[in-house]
Amino acid sequence: MREGRIPADIKQSPLFWPARLRGDVLWVLDETLIPQKLRYIKVRDTRQAVMVIRQMKTRAFGQFLVVMQAFLLEIIAFGRRREEKQEGRSSQKDLFNRIEKTAAALNKSRPTFPFEEVTGLVVGWAREAIQRNQDIQTFVPRRINGYLEEIRGRRLDRVYKIASIFEDGDSILTHCNVSGELAMAAYLARQQNKHVHFFATETRPYFQGAKLTAWELRRMGVDVTLIADNAVGSVLSDGLVNKVMVGSDRSCANGDFANKIGTYQIAVLAQEFNVPFYVLTQPSNKIKSGKDIPVEVRNSQELLTYLNRKIVSGVVSGFYPAFDVVPHGLVTEAIALDVRG
Amino acid sequence: MREGRIPADIKQSPLFWPARLRGDVLWVLDETLIPQKLRYIKVRDTRQAVMVIRQMKTRAFGQFLVVMQAFLLEIIAFGRRREEKQEGRSSQKDLFNRIEKTAAALNKSRPTFPFEEVTGLVVGWAREAIQRNQDIQTFVPRRINGYLEEIRGRRLDRVYKIASIFEDGDSILTHCNVSGELAMAAYLARQQNKHVHFFATETRPYFQGAKLTAWELRRMGVDVTLIADNAVGSVLSDGLVNKVMVGSDRSCANGDFANKIGTYQIAVLAQEFNVPFYVLTQPSNKIKSGKDIPVEVRNSQELLTYLNRKIVSGVVSGFYPAFDVVPHGLVTEAIALDVRG
Repeated sequence: MREGRIPADIKQSPLFWPARLRGDVLWVLDETLIPQKLRYIKVRDTRQAVMVIRQMKTRAFGQFLVVMQAFLLEIIAFGRRREEKQEGRSSQKDLFNRIEKTAAALNKSRPTFPFEEVTGLVVGWAREAIQRNQDIQTFVPRRINGYLEEIRGRRLDRVYKIASIFEDGDSILTHCNVSGELAMAAYLARQQNKHVHFFATETRPYFQGAKLTAWELRRMGVDVTLIADNAVGSVLSDGLVNKVMVGSDRSCANGDFANKIGTYQIAVLAQEFNVPFYVLTQPSNKIKSGKDIPVEVRNSQELLTYLNRKIVSGVVSGFYPAFDVVPHGLVTEAIALDVRG
Repeated sequence: MREGRIPADIKQSPLFWPARLRGDVLWVLDETLIPQKLRYIKVRDTRQAVMVIRQMKTRAFGQFLVVMQAFLLEIIAFGRRREEKQEGRSSQKDLFNRIEKTAAALNKSRPTFPFEEVTGLVVGWAREAIQRNQDIQTFVPRRINGYLEEIRGRRLDRVYKIASIFEDGDSILTHCNVSGELAMAAYLARQQNKHVHFFATETRPYFQGAKLTAWELRRMGVDVTLIADNAVGSVLSDGLVNKVMVGSDRSCANGDFANKIGTYQIAVLAQEFNVPFYVLTQPSNKIKSGKDIPVEVRNSQELLTYLNRKIVSGVVSGFYPAFDVVPHGLVTEAIALDVRG
């Protein structure tokens, strides 16, 4: 496995690692302001971490980073108070309780994304520290940082893997946003003299494809053409696309996965038109199959308004499932992020 | 066939007949202002008629009405000049030329919609007038008005037909807007004690579903839930829909048809999930199959901006085919408007 540093042949996308701890502040990229502004939000505690997740200021991989590092914020705050009060190791139980409370708060932030799996890891490390008679305050941050470093390395490995799948002349359809990896792989492919073109769906209702994917691909100097979500069938049937590649928010033991609403229909269409369908997954055995994934239904106001202006008038109701679940039978190849693999 | 008057058991939708001649002005419903405003644009000549079509102020059936009645405007203007100049029947050739020029200008307004078939009818009637030694100035308007009256009657017949297809408890998915017929059929069905619910796709990039369909269904007191175009696969796979019904902009001899972009993928998904797919067609034998339909590709700025605000930043290119073509194999039943049938 590669170390977590960005190799010289890849240019980093801001979306690849959108939340970083500096001192006692977690700087979280505000993805809702992209492409107009590249601005970071200061997150100082768990409450603020839950807010940026719930308001979708950060999403996908960014959520994972915020959750992991929210524990660091809590541990830092705890340590500061401990110093002030000159408390000793006797406060281990208090810190453990605080970590458990933090986990519970983060778990409730949004459904669909497997927060409890991530927070469960951290609670497990805290428990391990107690069992081994280690100081939670140093043991857990070391584990968190080591884990993040490992993930960064594996994500970079996957960028190389994706670039190896790309062939010169490919026209790749993608949906929503894959948090930097696709753009970095396309950049890398070009270093290898492989020119690839992307179709990005705009990805209503949040326009992640228009705002994030098109933006980061252009930043990397990669050709990208934006289409309405409605044009997927058209470009596939016209033979304008030869690969589909998407990310996933949650994967199951049997290969089913959840991703941004619209992914399921793209997978059906890819099969209909014989275009290979690739998905980047974070394998998990916690959930057996797609029917066990809880799908978040978000407030329909997010569908009925745009830039604070109502699209509809009067009392029209909306239904906004934020994700859908793709059965594994529609997947040509899952490109897993093998954490501890 | 029913006469063109609206029967007492149906409430008329403004979208059912969105362009009416009063004196020498054609009042065209500005569909881009709906649902905020119900406002009509004054169209006085062919140039203005082409403008409202090209700018999509009117669309679908409205385009047909504007094209037909643009000839009436030209004939009225011609008649006025003839009176002023006290010209006689010798000017028949001039009026015929003017009708041919009007047809040519209208034909160039937008691709995909079969303008030349509509304008060809009028040119044919002008030719018939000459052959029969009739005055074009009275003969052609009589034919145009008779034809419009016939179409109105047939559309009303179809409203009854659609209502007969609706069953109590139906949940019907529709896309874009079907110019009043669906809403009026739903109203009629309710008079018949059949309650139906609609899912309307928002229909990017113009939001016709959000702005027109949801609005007119609500106006009729019909239950409607708006979804993102991305949620079609989700609601179909979850069994929330038991019929799909859409309109068409152009139909072929073999049953293929063109409609608003996104219709093709909905048809594929309906088949995948075994939901019957209905289409309202205007049969035409002018075009053999779908591959002969020219698909309009519109300016991608219409995709990249919303309410004059850019969704993307920088030089992102867009691809905006305005229609797609659905192969007849995906159609469960075509409900034809049998003009002269």
